[in-house]
Amino acid sequence: MRYDFSSDNTTGMAPVAVQGLIAANSGAVAAYGRDEITERAADQIRRRLDADVEVRFVFSGTAGNAIALSMLAWPFEAVLAHHAAHVCTDECGAPGFFGQGVGLIGLPGFSGKIDPRALNAALAEPDIAHRQPPAALSLTQCTEYGTVYTVDELRHLIEPVKARGMGVHMDGARLANAAAAGFDLTQIARLGVDLLVFGGAKAGANCVEALVMFDKSLARRIDNRLKQAGQTASKGRFLAGPMLGLLESESWETGAAHANRMALRLAEGIATRSPYVLAHPVEANAVFVRMPEKAHARLSAAGWACYRFDDGSVRFVCSWATTEEVVDEIVAVIAGLG
Amino acid sequence: MRYDFSSDNTTGMAPVAVQGLIAANSGAVAAYGRDEITERAADQIRRRLDADVEVRFVFSGTAGNAIALSMLAWPFEAVLAHHAAHVCTDECGAPGFFGQGVGLIGLPGFSGKIDPRALNAALAEPDIAHRQPPAALSLTQCTEYGTVYTVDELRHLIEPVKARGMGVHMDGARLANAAAAGFDLTQIARLGVDLLVFGGAKAGANCVEALVMFDKSLARRIDNRLKQAGQTASKGRFLAGPMLGLLESESWETGAAHANRMALRLAEGIATRSPYVLAHPVEANAVFVRMPEKAHARLSAAGWACYRFDDGSVRFVCSWATTEEVVDEIVAVIAGLG
Amino acid sequence: MRYDFSSDNTTGMAPVAVQGLIAANSGAVAAYGRDEITERAADQIRRRLDADVEVRFVFSGTAGNAIALSMLAWPFEAVLAHHAAHVCTDECGAPGFFGQGVGLIGLPGFSGKIDPRALNAALAEPDIAHRQPPAALSLTQCTEYGTVYTVDELRHLIEPVKARGMGVHMDGARLANAAAAGFDLTQIARLGVDLLVFGGAKAGANCVEALVMFDKSLARRIDNRLKQAGQTASKGRFLAGPMLGLLESESWETGAAHANRMALRLAEGIATRSPYVLAHPVEANAVFVRMPEKAHARLSAAGWACYRFDDGSVRFVCSWATTEEVVDEIVAVIAGLG
Amino acid sequence: MRYDFSSDNTTGMAPVAVQGLIAANSGAVAAYGRDEITERAADQIRRRLDADVEVRFVFSGTAGNAIALSMLAWPFEAVLAHHAAHVCTDECGAPGFFGQGVGLIGLPGFSGKIDPRALNAALAEPDIAHRQPPAALSLTQCTEYGTVYTVDELRHLIEPVKARGMGVHMDGARLANAAAAGFDLTQIARLGVDLLVFGGAKAGANCVEALVMFDKSLARRIDNRLKQAGQTASKGRFLAGPMLGLLESESWETGAAHANRMALRLAEGIATRSPYVLAHPVEANAVFVRMPEKAHARLSAAGWACYRFDDGSVRFVCSWATTEEVVDEIVAVIAGLG
Repeated sequence: MRYDFSSDNTTGMAPVAVQGLIAANSGAVAAYGRDEITERAADQIRRRLDADVEVRFVFSGTAGNAIALSMLAWPFEAVLAHHAAHVCTDECGAPGFFGQGVGLIGLPGFSGKIDPRALNAALAEPDIAHRQPPAALSLTQCTEYGTVYTVDELRHLIEPVKARGMGVHMDGARLANAAAAGFDLTQIARLGVDLLVFGGAKAGANCVEALVMFDKSLARRIDNRLKQAGQTASKGRFLAGPMLGLLESESWETGAAHANRMALRLAEGIATRSPYVLAHPVEANAVFVRMPEKAHARLSAAGWACYRFDDGSVRFVCSWATTEEVVDEIVAVIAGLG
Repeated sequence: MRYDFSSDNTTGMAPVAVQGLIAANSGAVAAYGRDEITERAADQIRRRLDADVEVRFVFSGTAGNAIALSMLAWPFEAVLAHHAAHVCTDECGAPGFFGQGVGLIGLPGFSGKIDPRALNAALAEPDIAHRQPPAALSLTQCTEYGTVYTVDELRHLIEPVKARGMGVHMDGARLANAAAAGFDLTQIARLGVDLLVFGGAKAGANCVEALVMFDKSLARRIDNRLKQAGQTASKGRFLAGPMLGLLESESWETGAAHANRMALRLAEGIATRSPYVLAHPVEANAVFVRMPEKAHARLSAAGWACYRFDDGSVRFVCSWATTEEVVDEIVAVIAGLG
Repeated sequence: MRYDFSSDNTTGMAPVAVQGLIAANSGAVAAYGRDEITERAADQIRRRLDADVEVRFVFSGTAGNAIALSMLAWPFEAVLAHHAAHVCTDECGAPGFFGQGVGLIGLPGFSGKIDPRALNAALAEPDIAHRQPPAALSLTQCTEYGTVYTVDELRHLIEPVKARGMGVHMDGARLANAAAAGFDLTQIARLGVDLLVFGGAKAGANCVEALVMFDKSLARRIDNRLKQAGQTASKGRFLAGPMLGLLESESWETGAAHANRMALRLAEGIATRSPYVLAHPVEANAVFVRMPEKAHARLSAAGWACYRFDDGSVRFVCSWATTEEVVDEIVAVIAGLG
Repeated sequence: MRYDFSSDNTTGMAPVAVQGLIAANSGAVAAYGRDEITERAADQIRRRLDADVEVRFVFSGTAGNAIALSMLAWPFEAVLAHHAAHVCTDECGAPGFFGQGVGLIGLPGFSGKIDPRALNAALAEPDIAHRQPPAALSLTQCTEYGTVYTVDELRHLIEPVKARGMGVHMDGARLANAAAAGFDLTQIARLGVDLLVFGGAKAGANCVEALVMFDKSLARRIDNRLKQAGQTASKGRFLAGPMLGLLESESWETGAAHANRMALRLAEGIATRSPYVLAHPVEANAVFVRMPEKAHARLSAAGWACYRFDDGSVRFVCSWATTEEVVDEIVAVIAGLG
């Protein structure tokens, strides 16, 4: 089975990430992230966000998101999110586990973007004791369906939430792809996001994401919080090193730009050469295709792993490692499925 | 500041672990640990334990231990452990967090080993509704004070626990050092241990431990459990690869044997050349020294980081990377502190 | 404001329940439910269920339900329930709080009854690590919309669930009304229900429900579980006493039969004398009426408190205390709203 | 078996409490504590505390304490308490359950009072990521060993805690006995206590305690918090009614004063007529007696239930219902045990 397009997690580490890890692997250094590599990687993130933020590196986006939400909502409160967001559909209830029952309120909207009317309707609900009232908004940039919020779209979602004193979390597992699509990272702080999970794994690192705290009061005893939650790396440099390799070399950006280009090439190939239609706008590194069950089965039988998503379409994901050749190869296969 | 002896977490990855990672980094493979590297690393562990066990790789010993304990005890029950065990003193309450309040009952005993009389006294306590009764025993091999249980010692602790239908967890963060000290790993299954955390990080890997399930019924929906707990590696091969490198090359064993030898050299140096006495038998890779506050401060001022432990002694830890030269260097420094 | 029809919780204790409490209040007796009143009340429940069950009295249906679900599902699993069930809509996320994130999968179906096709579709979902798979079924008898499952309907829902080794919970907050409507309580054990919350408060007691364990293995350390969860009554007789009063006198049954008759009278009055239509079949003690927002506002302005429910209809609930006079009075008011 | 002295939970409801319940049981009123009885009972508490506090009635002291602690400490933090405090020894780990792992740091001190030196030593501990640092202090008034803190003693404990920005919880399960012993309730607010559990059950009510919030910011969404935690009474008046009966009649005070007098009579009887010595000063309603195992067994055999406590002494508790006759009777029995 070939895993080229099944997920951006099936790709390995980018060469510069491996180099970053090897560079970090020298001599004895302080454990638990109190080393210089970790500090330099955090600085790289601060520079990109143009903000004096607290940064911690964690192992998993699921944990990063769930811990972030537990910082914004009590167990008797809920988090507003798109119903197709990773926190709602793909984390096996981690927000409830880390947050001891914190609720999720799924909101609709096309192609993974929350519809502001749905958000406002949810915010207008009366605050009664028998339901978990919303305490925070979770946004995904780029979205689960490969679309990218504009700054204005984000502002319209964030403003009414902040006006009510609620917190804002951003799941940036594919933030690099959003940035490569033109999203200005320095606006995240301006928009009022409190907590960001800044993606590493899908951008070419090993398993590492950065938990970024714009609201520094949320960073109080963060090291205790992460330690207890099993997200403190004893050998912290092996989380920071690969991230540093990607960031210093700007491969975080160039790899994502490449991934986005490959997604566009794939989308154009499918749109022009196959009978299948695209299910969502292709704005980042994922392509969603409406494809009958039979065609999907034939694609699998031909050796290509790829998932059918919650909306029924089949997802193809490109990464820093996707080549033009493999794109053209799968386009040819798809074109021949009918 | 020099971190050579402050912890076995201050050491980097062993060369074979890095090679294992690089070897794993080829092409697109299935995500979430459904890859061949992961399977081969699990096989290496099965071979060492001589048991057909379920194996999953997790990021952190703290999480591995806490998740294991949550599999053996309900929130309204407790786990018996040495009061100086890592789960009691160094995991910021992770067992209670992952286990929603599961209790810990700290037991005494010399040099980190549980005194069987204390265990039996705890087991003899009446089972009343107002207290969390014990449901499991947690053992650390080798112990937090660098001693190694014999098989007989373990049997005397495990038998009365199993006779009551309780579970047994083993924290093997330094299992390689215990094995190098002569502990027969194939006895773990025979002794009735249900869950083992098989250490990788301290043995020369990056941040990886293996959660080993001898009682396979505990493995039911383990992938859901780990995913929810933020301990599923999307790119699973980067946990398994370094572990595989260590295990296939047997550096897991040889590195630990080296570490133990260096600890012995350090202990002999201190015992013979300094005025300070050893606080515990040196059976693995750690040396605990009774040293006045002033001497410890002078050692720090000389640039050597090392911790004062809960029993008041100062801990020095050796690893696969510790050289004879650095041992001799610090011995000379310690000898000159007085 | 008049609360006669807003909920069966707005009614006080039935006279026999008060007498039961007073009868229980004599002398010093063992605390924590180890008294004779508690045992006799449990016996009354055993007799009704025709089953040798474990019984514990708890303060709150929300807690009883949530604790029951935490006994059937791990945090990384989910419970199947009607999307309008109390556990889904009215307990402020208690199942997730007591179950540390245990999920709820809301199923559709007319008038509060789970549609078997929806259940079977949920059971047929592939078991993947990223989602909380179902581990139990929660049924409400009678349902949130005042309908009563037949034994056959329950069998069709329970059988496929038990066939997969899953557990079954029944929320019987209004079980007395279901029994009064003809539901045979002795079938609950035969059907394979594992845990039942046997309602007391709505039947005329103070705040008390009985947690009934058909599967006795679930009762292991139940007293520890309840103590930790804050559901152990120190003065246990004041939970059991009112329940015993209701059960020994059979007011539990006769009060519910009266409530059901009053609901029928109310429904007939509304159907024949007002322009509003009933939203659901009236099979127990609740009447749901489709009524424009304006009419509901006028009803409130006239001093009658009653809620608009999730399906948009307005709910009227009758109890053991509802009189024919007050039914006729509100019917006249509703008839005059138009 | 006679339960007269085994606990103040073995006593029934005081007559005025029963009257309060009956008085509350009239007509239909708003559910969930939004009724006038509840408001009047809260006012009675406000008057006693001379403070404009938020009050909610809960079913259980265990839950009240655990919920209070979860409002003051995060899961990765700990609460300082006397090692013999109810929260440490008798709540089956409820603080960890409600607080998802929140830790407890047990402090020593004679007769149930925290030794200020021990407190200050705990506060001076370095704040490291691997341990749960203290975030709050829990005090018990009167203490588990029947002693009563003076205002000055409390001040010396509270001041250093508040100076560090930490919260203070007071377990007042036997606050009435402390008040009867001369403790000025209006000082609680002045001392800076944030949360008080104001005892009802032991003072003669059914199962009810009041959660009192001096720091009103802690009351935000308290109704959601209590609902989710299973501590919201649907028929709120049956918690408030008995409490109101006790408070309006001042039986809360007079009953406790009587209990304290009976304890003194019992203590004097034992001290003068038996060979056994008192283990702790008798300042409230409990008497602790050093008594050989054999004597205790003979007392049980004679039909008197009473517990051996953690310090090895045998506890006798008096209540509003204890008569001089029964005191004299048990004194005679104890005098004859030798």
